Amino acid sequence: MPEKIKRLALIGIGLIGSSIARGACEYGLAEEIVVQTRRPETLEAAERLGLGDRYTLSAAEAAEGADLVIASVPVGAYGAVAEEIGPVLKPGAIVSDVGSVKAAVIRQVTPFLPEHAHFVPAHPVAGTEYSGPEAGFADLFRSRWCILTPPEGTDAAALASVRAFWEGLGSNVETMTPEHHDMVLAITSHVPHLIAYNIVGTAADLEAVTESEVMKFAAGGFRDFTRIAASDPTMWRDVFLNNKEAVLEMLGRFNEDLSALQRAIRWGDGDALFELFNRTRAIRRGIIAAGQETAEPDFGRAAAAKTV
Amino acid sequence: MPEKIKRLALIGIGLIGSSIARGACEYGLAEEIVVQTRRPETLEAAERLGLGDRYTLSAAEAAEGADLVIASVPVGAYGAVAEEIGPVLKPGAIVSDVGSVKAAVIRQVTPFLPEHAHFVPAHPVAGTEYSGPEAGFADLFRSRWCILTPPEGTDAAALASVRAFWEGLGSNVETMTPEHHDMVLAITSHVPHLIAYNIVGTAADLEAVTESEVMKFAAGGFRDFTRIAASDPTMWRDVFLNNKEAVLEMLGRFNEDLSALQRAIRWGDGDALFELFNRTRAIRRGIIAAGQETAEPDFGRAAAAKTV
Ligand SMILES: NC(=O)c1ccc[n+]([C@@H]2O[C@H](COP(=O)([O-])OP(=O)(O)OC[C@H]3O[C@@H](n4cnc5c(N)ncnc54)[C@H](OP(=O)(O)O)[C@@H]3O)[C@@H](O)[C@H]2O)c1
Ligand SMILES: NC(=O)c1ccc[n+]([C@@H]2O[C@H](COP(=O)([O-])OP(=O)(O)OC[C@H]3O[C@@H](n4cnc5c(N)ncnc54)[C@H](OP(=O)(O)O)[C@@H]3O)[C@@H](O)[C@H]2O)c1
Repeated sequence: MPEKIKRLALIGIGLIGSSIARGACEYGLAEEIVVQTRRPETLEAAERLGLGDRYTLSAAEAAEGADLVIASVPVGAYGAVAEEIGPVLKPGAIVSDVGSVKAAVIRQVTPFLPEHAHFVPAHPVAGTEYSGPEAGFADLFRSRWCILTPPEGTDAAALASVRAFWEGLGSNVETMTPEHHDMVLAITSHVPHLIAYNIVGTAADLEAVTESEVMKFAAGGFRDFTRIAASDPTMWRDVFLNNKEAVLEMLGRFNEDLSALQRAIRWGDGDALFELFNRTRAIRRGIIAAGQETAEPDFGRAAAAKTV
Repeated sequence: MPEKIKRLALIGIGLIGSSIARGACEYGLAEEIVVQTRRPETLEAAERLGLGDRYTLSAAEAAEGADLVIASVPVGAYGAVAEEIGPVLKPGAIVSDVGSVKAAVIRQVTPFLPEHAHFVPAHPVAGTEYSGPEAGFADLFRSRWCILTPPEGTDAAALASVRAFWEGLGSNVETMTPEHHDMVLAITSHVPHLIAYNIVGTAADLEAVTESEVMKFAAGGFRDFTRIAASDPTMWRDVFLNNKEAVLEMLGRFNEDLSALQRAIRWGDGDALFELFNRTRAIRRGIIAAGQETAEPDFGRAAAAKTV
């Protein structure tokens, strides 16, 4: 059982912030939770859902006196949050985030934090295609990985606290450099989102195939891509603007490989196609074995349909 | 209630063939079901599962005297099946298939069928990433679309029979030309599979990111692609070899659009990214409204996990 956080301030209370709030409450990780968000309507929703003990539209007010501050805002907004809360942080306060990109967030945040506070950047690798406070749930992070990317010289006690907090939410915790994180996530998350957005856009723009046909016959595979392409546009715009190098690098690899496949199709090279198609199955088996995916056919959609 | 088929012969008894067998049994669509498959071990599995009334390794034996013959084999294998069953088909027999590509299958099959038999090509747009007789289930086709692509001059009564059969399995039925089918499916199914296979291959080949990292952090989006990339390699090799033109055409569009996105990332054009990411959400809403997808977050994976 990790030591309870005395006062936890949550800056941003969307899918991720509200899931942290619910989890912290359910698993008794904090004595007091202060909730902040930008717009009054989101704050009202958070209050209606009972996500915290106190509610405010001011990030500075929320952060003042807090022992752990976790910001859960779009990747491009962390600098402004840090600038606002920097001056009021108490000595020994720990600041963390959940941004899907790490090097750029660290660059934005660090200049605004006082010497007497500790910054422990974090990224829970968990989410859904929905956003806002209603979309969160306490077990979003259970059995998922949370990656910490502490800059060199990070206070060991602060790092241990943040690790214990995420373990308290049910996550497995791993530590790596921000640069490596950004490379890993470029391939496991950012490029997959980009190509999903892209193919859905391509399908919508065709003249030879109507949008109604695309929707009717989506069960052939296309619909899997639309889930990802329904994710929050602001969040994803910020991810691509802030992880440009790693995304372009991985996209370059993807394009090279796709050109080779294209050539195999053009020249009828069935063996090359078979070899790739056979090899990729092992990766899914590995993901299922690692507890990161269901083995149910079709993601268990049939079971989901029955419980609704 | 459609008229019962007297004798239904199923050539091939994998995911699709066995789902037809189960559905036909469950919904009382046939008086007698004859099951054929190539390998003794698959035939034994079919027999163990009780999928038919008679079992044979010979397609000709199965087709002889049948009123409706449905072949469910890889797209490259329909010609050989037609060659084998052509000589034994009784007058008025209806032959159908379930191939994911239509023009090429029609080209393969037509030369081998006698004048006195009727060919009604079909493609049920439904499936999972698993294959073989154990993977099938009676409701695979329920609320999914089945596309019929009758060549000009197809016998109206035969067409009506095949339509009634698929409606009996719970499908919605639509009719279009083989060429249009192949174009629609290229974008809703074939290209999505190709890029899913491709990105899983790219991820497996990286040096900077280990395979174990790819698996651990797959929940960021990548794992959705691995489901599709776990589909049967033989089936998909045959699809790409037999729908070359439409796939290359759609892939060309996809590549053009991806280049534009790549440029937007390189030059930091956040508005272009936001515009696309915002537009693509509407397509998913349309697919959900069309009854072709669950609205549950994450495909209802959480519900699936709970029922297992
Ligand atoms: N969604 C995922 O799957 C996922 C997974 C892992 C990590 N992340 C990361 O988690 C963070 C939050 O994502 P989310 O999914 O929770 O988003 P969300 O549901 O859209 O919530 C965003 C929150 O940030 C606030 N916000 C938006 N723009 C802001 C700005 N310019 N300045 C200050 N606050 C702002 C919103 O406030 P108002 O509603 O009051 O405007 C809301 O409280 C992002 O950094 C993302 O990279 C997301
Ligand atoms: N899977 C999908 O999602 C899906 C969806 C819609 C349509 N389809 C189409 O359905 C058809 C069958 O797919 P499936 O998923 O049912 O495949 P499957 O589960 O792998 O079963 C294939 C069946 O075809 C037999 N077979 C394999 N190669 C053969 C050959 N060269 N000659 C004769 N028989 C052969 C197999 O026999 P043995 O096991 O005895 O070797 C088995 O009975 C394909 O045309 C595919 O395009 C598939």
